[in-house]
Formats: sequence, structure tokens, C-alpha cells
Amino acid sequence: MRAVIPYKKQNAKSRLSPALTLEEREYFVELMLRDVVESLQAAGVNKIDVLTTPQNGVPDDLDVDIIFSEHDLNKAINGYLETVDEPVLVIMADLPLVTPQHIRNITDIEDDLVIVPGKGGGTNVLFIKNPDSFYVRYYDSSYINHCRIAQEMQQSVHVFDSFLLSTDIDEPQDLVEIMLHGHGLSKSYIDSKFGMEDNGRARVRVSLCQ
Amino acid sequence: MRAVIPYKKQNAKSRLSPALTLEEREYFVELMLRDVVESLQAAGVNKIDVLTTPQNGVPDDLDVDIIFSEHDLNKAINGYLETVDEPVLVIMADLPLVTPQHIRNITDIEDDLVIVPGKGGGTNVLFIKNPDSFYVRYYDSSYINHCRIAQEMQQSVHVFDSFLLSTDIDEPQDLVEIMLHGHGLSKSYIDSKFGMEDNGRARVRVSLCQ
Repeated sequence: MRAVIPYKKQNAKSRLSPALTLEEREYFVELMLRDVVESLQAAGVNKIDVLTTPQNGVPDDLDVDIIFSEHDLNKAINGYLETVDEPVLVIMADLPLVTPQHIRNITDIEDDLVIVPGKGGGTNVLFIKNPDSFYVRYYDSSYINHCRIAQEMQQSVHVFDSFLLSTDIDEPQDLVEIMLHGHGLSKSYIDSKFGMEDNGRARVRVSLCQ
Repeated sequence: MRAVIPYKKQNAKSRLSPALTLEEREYFVELMLRDVVESLQAAGVNKIDVLTTPQNGVPDDLDVDIIFSEHDLNKAINGYLETVDEPVLVIMADLPLVTPQHIRNITDIEDDLVIVPGKGGGTNVLFIKNPDSFYVRYYDSSYINHCRIAQEMQQSVHVFDSFLLSTDIDEPQDLVEIMLHGHGLSKSYIDSKFGMEDNGRARVRVSLCQ
């Protein structure tokens, strides 16, 4: 099997801008990428492609292959799927809570397709056993899209139920989850920048370190 | 083992008020309670207590024991824990995505304490093997509280990783998760009232059925 991580550094994670500057966001997404790659490698996945735009931004020291694509996300990944003839793990770069055990568990599942849902109908991870019998359609309720495409292509589906893997980091409030449940470089960075305070409603929220 | 479900019907889930009227919210929380009880029973848990305020609100036809308490949540649960001498599953009433398999998996874990985290540092489920060696502290980063209390009381901890069980239903956006991943009475009700629309940002949001 191999893994592919779609990645875009430039002006990444604009919805985090209330909490992080542009430079901080671009630094932070690189740390999240490193954490994802680390978990894949620790799980024994040694064929890792990073699919990115020609501006690149992937650090040189990562033991990954870089694939450039000018296309939008769906075209880029579907183009990539046409070039591979082994199972492919499509894992997003903003999942710093992923652990090697998640990767092992997902890749042990026997169904044709494993979907890890994200919040609000998104798709965080896909494990595609038969890349010639699947295509992706991210954005616009991608979870529903991917279930439907699997059904259309007669691929059996397993929905993988993990809080940590459903937690993609998009908005300031998501940073709390890194503080509470994270590990690795992204946790160290976020811990150095933020604290938590109670908001009186059974939730914690981020606050700048004083 | 036994299960206890803290429950309060009156003016429940005020943060859902952008989406549901008071009557609808009170009806909906009862449906969520029914779904939680159903999953417990299907998992073979037949000793189920509902811990509620004297105004009650628990439907008569549920096969549960009702325990009244005037106290706040923490005092009520801690008082309850003092009366039991078997493992206790404390499961919140707003977890309609819970399945019988979750219950079986949690209760099979051998650690002294199983914690199912909620979003933003909350605690959705606790499985307390030794009720005389634990006490609860909900609100104000309860996840951290409960990990700390377990450490203080020398109880081993397993953090249970489930997207569905981490999804407590508090805000209108959470209703999407019921539509996408739910089952049972709460899903039927929410499906009858709402649809989904894409907001152009890779997430879906609730919209009123036309």
C-alpha cells in the first residue's frame, strides 16, 4: 500500500487567522504534516507521497515523494489514483491527532473502502483498496459523496469511528483538542502559544499565553 | 454493572433554540434519552437509573428506575456513586449516536476507569469500575478533571476513542451529525424537521425543510 497526503502551505488554514498570523499558520501546517508523516512511518508505511502545488512548501528533510499538481483537489487526487495499482491511504494533512495505531487499524480492515468521517459531513481519511474502482469528490458533503460513489462502484464500506481522526484542525476552537489530546510537534507548538480557560459552559476555549 | 443517565427535560438544550422551539427541544431530548436507553438495553444493560430533578419528565413507559435529586449535577452523581457497589456507566442523555456495540466495547475494557471525551474538554461517558474510588467533576474542563481524579485515586484510565460518542448534541450544527450518522427516534425526528445544504466550505449545515 501507499499513502498520499494532499498539502498546501501557502496561506493555509485561513480560518485559523483569529488565532495565528499568516507566518504562524504556514509554520503550523508544516508541523501538522510532519506529525502525520511521523505516524505513518511509525505504522510501517514507507511509501508516502505528498501531493502539492508547484509552489511546494514541503520540507526537504521529510522522507516522502513530492508530486506536483496544478489541479484542484479532486482532479489532483483522481489523477493520482489513476497512476497507482495498490491500495491507497488518502490522509489529510490537518489531522495531527492521528496515531500509528489508527493507521494500523484502518489498513487491517478488509472492506474495499474505509472512510473516516470529519465533522459536518467531511472526509478525513480514505483507504481505497481498489483505486481503479473509486474516485473522490471532496467538498460539498464529501462523506455522503464517498458513500454514494462506493455504492455505485460496488465497493464495500467500513466507516471508521474515531474522535481523534475526525478532528481536523480548521478553526481556533479545534486547537483545544490538540492541547488536550495531541502529541508531537503540533502539540508542542500550540502549547507554547496558547492556554485554556473555562468559558463557564462545560467547554474550554483557547486563550493567548500571557 | 449498572448505568445512570443524568437527565433534565425542562428548558433543556437552550443552545438549540435557534433551531428548535422550547416544546420541540423538550420533545427532542426525550427522544435522545429513549435512544440512549435503547442502546443500553440492546447491549444487555438491564439496570438503568435515570437521575433527574423532582419535576421529572421521564416517560412512564421506559424500563428504567427514576432517582430524584435536587442537587446540582456533580453533587447528584457523587451522591449516587456512594450508594452503589458495582461498576457504574455514567452516560449523558444527549448522545443519540451511541450504539450497543459502543456499550459492549466500553464495558469490556479492563481499566479502572474508561473516559469518553466530549468536544472541547468535556466528558460524555464514564465507566467507573470502583465507585468508592472515584468522584466526578463535570463542567470546567471535566476531561482534565476526571483524568486528574483518576490519577489521584490511583485508578488506571482508558480513553475511549469514538467520533460518534464524542458527539454530544448541543448546538444547531451538531444536528447535522445526527442526520449523517444517527439512527433511532432522534434521527427520524431531526430528518423530518431539517435538511442539509452545502455552505461552500466543505461542511454541510442544517436548514429548515421547505
